Amino acid sequence: SGSFDPSEHPHIRYNPLRDDWVLVSPHRSKRPWQGQVEKAEEAVIPRHDPKNPLCPGATRPNGKVNPNYEGTYVFTNDFQAILEETPKPEPSDDPLFQTAQAQGTCKVMCFHPWSDITLPLMELKDIRKVVDTWAEINADLGKTYTWVQIFENRGSAMGCSNPHPHCQVWSSSFLPNELAAKERTQRVYKEKHGKPLLVDYLDKELKKQERLVLETAHWVWLVPYWAVWPYETMLLPRRHVLRIEDLTDEERNDLALMLKKLLTKYDNLFETSCPYSMGWHGAPTGEWLKKDCSHWQLHALYYPPLLRSATVKKFMVGYEMLAQPQRDLTAEQAADKLKKLPDQHYKEKKG
Amino acid sequence: SGSFDPSEHPHIRYNPLRDDWVLVSPHRSKRPWQGQVEKAEEAVIPRHDPKNPLCPGATRPNGKVNPNYEGTYVFTNDFQAILEETPKPEPSDDPLFQTAQAQGTCKVMCFHPWSDITLPLMELKDIRKVVDTWAEINADLGKTYTWVQIFENRGSAMGCSNPHPHCQVWSSSFLPNELAAKERTQRVYKEKHGKPLLVDYLDKELKKQERLVLETAHWVWLVPYWAVWPYETMLLPRRHVLRIEDLTDEERNDLALMLKKLLTKYDNLFETSCPYSMGWHGAPTGEWLKKDCSHWQLHALYYPPLLRSATVKKFMVGYEMLAQPQRDLTAEQAADKLKKLPDQHYKEKKG
Ligand SMILES: O=P(O)(O)O[C@H]1O[C@H](CO)[C@@H](O)[C@H](O)[C@H]1O
Ligand SMILES: O=P(O)(O)O[C@H]1O[C@H](CO)[C@@H](O)[C@H](O)[C@H]1O
Repeated sequence: SGSFDPSEHPHIRYNPLRDDWVLVSPHRSKRPWQGQVEKAEEAVIPRHDPKNPLCPGATRPNGKVNPNYEGTYVFTNDFQAILEETPKPEPSDDPLFQTAQAQGTCKVMCFHPWSDITLPLMELKDIRKVVDTWAEINADLGKTYTWVQIFENRGSAMGCSNPHPHCQVWSSSFLPNELAAKERTQRVYKEKHGKPLLVDYLDKELKKQERLVLETAHWVWLVPYWAVWPYETMLLPRRHVLRIEDLTDEERNDLALMLKKLLTKYDNLFETSCPYSMGWHGAPTGEWLKKDCSHWQLHALYYPPLLRSATVKKFMVGYEMLAQPQRDLTAEQAADKLKKLPDQHYKEKKG
Repeated sequence: SGSFDPSEHPHIRYNPLRDDWVLVSPHRSKRPWQGQVEKAEEAVIPRHDPKNPLCPGATRPNGKVNPNYEGTYVFTNDFQAILEETPKPEPSDDPLFQTAQAQGTCKVMCFHPWSDITLPLMELKDIRKVVDTWAEINADLGKTYTWVQIFENRGSAMGCSNPHPHCQVWSSSFLPNELAAKERTQRVYKEKHGKPLLVDYLDKELKKQERLVLETAHWVWLVPYWAVWPYETMLLPRRHVLRIEDLTDEERNDLALMLKKLLTKYDNLFETSCPYSMGWHGAPTGEWLKKDCSHWQLHALYYPPLLRSATVKKFMVGYEMLAQPQRDLTAEQAADKLKKLPDQHYKEKKG
């Protein structure tokens, strides 16, 4: 079998942020596919639909009327998964039956008044408003809550039930699993190596040049060494930044530019409005604002589900749910493919 | 807001096997749904299709011809994610770029010669053959490999690309993430409390009577306190059993009966052939066969994705991927619903 070649031989890679592993099977994407395909989402969406609860001027299920907003617009989710006022469960001394309190609030944030536009097709000045609103909401909810999760589910393949461009913000009194893990791994890394994990990681990736996709003045977009989803990526600032509200004016403008570029690449990957879940991870808030969080580094994560085409996604099912995530191409192959894609959006070219 | 009521108030519950938490939002399933719906899978499937690589007598993509098998049939996956012979990566001293060797083999196991039958509609004697084949394969591959993951992806919603009743068995030289976590949590629990975690857990659930769904002479089917998927369940033997091959003749017959009953309930839930991923977790194998594994208890896990109907599933997306799993009804509500379902399969009733 000769010597080890990561682009040829199955292997496992370590994720130092989650302290777990991914199984990499480089040649498995060649197997035939007769399973479920997703809808190719090119249906015509009306620019304004007064019945769509995310549109300016629309009446929401709870009877409230949206203002005729022009930039971004934030409101409280009509069906919140976490509520501000919830009683504290009685403490239990049984380690097998432990319940704890969850307080928080869930917001919806519209990116733009039009339903028929997406982030990569928006103007830079309008994307900048999205960045500013993210920063504001993180700072604002962060005063009260331990964790503020900004995330976007785009496309019906990612459970998004409304085509209007928007994201969500769920904040909570507790530190969710993923962040509890990252708090621990980054703290331990900094104690041991003296540098924040992701600052060190970016330095090394900039030298290795194997998984970088796009670079701007202040941001780097790459496929992490331990990526799980076929085209999973990470977006990192060049500077050490704890939270999104700490970004400078220049970094924010440059982030708007980077977002336009990276989302254009994603849409060009399969010439479809690329479905994904994305979100921001930075230092925790609430009581953590007073603690040393210098082991944290702000970053965004993108998890697109597509594997082979606009309609064939990667299913994270049996083996992945019961044992360990598995991927069908290497991080380097994914980075290379994304890198070579055109910079102009396929929809703008056709126009 | 009054005193805490778990069927009313959002809260988080601890999963002692994974050492993490789930967010429970009891009333969230009331929100309207305009998102993606799954195909209702009632297409007519031919009993025998010579072009289907899982059928008796069919030619597979690699040119091999299946025997005219009559019970179960096991063969090596034509597109294996893990291979028997893979070289060892060079060791790296960088904690951020760690690769390790993966050796193993991936098997496919057909349950029955007919493509148009499913486990719950099979005869008990034929389900018993499935149980015996699971036991055999675990014992057999367990001689060589640290972990043998038996799992079934059923239905196109779970990435299953072939309607022929079958499961898969991926074995590996490494202990995958989920099992590494369970090895640790169960070991620590036994050290501290003197009893295996899941043996203790079953005792307590049998007393509480809040999440039990079905009981037979040797098996108990329940919704775990910390379930993530809407109708996630766990199947436990009453006796302390380390591995599936350790089941007695009586326990195997009774398991066949329990499988028929529980899968009938699942199909009756939304009157559809219920999609799910399921799998077996027991004590690790390979070098672990010589170690004390008495902290382990054999169990099967079922993860069906459906939430509201045969076509509306729960999406584990943005918040769940980036922060923490979230469920829209309590484990008790799910158990109650499953319990009340008829015991006769909806397809047999109609016939
Ligand atoms: O059954 P298949 O086609 O091998 O593949 C299916 O199960 C595998 C194991 O859970 C997953 O990795 C694949 O994404 C899924 O499509
Ligand atoms: O956007 P929605 O409709 O609130 O809901 C969507 O995102 C939520 C957060 O990731 C998930 O819990 C839901 O399953 C998904 O459908």
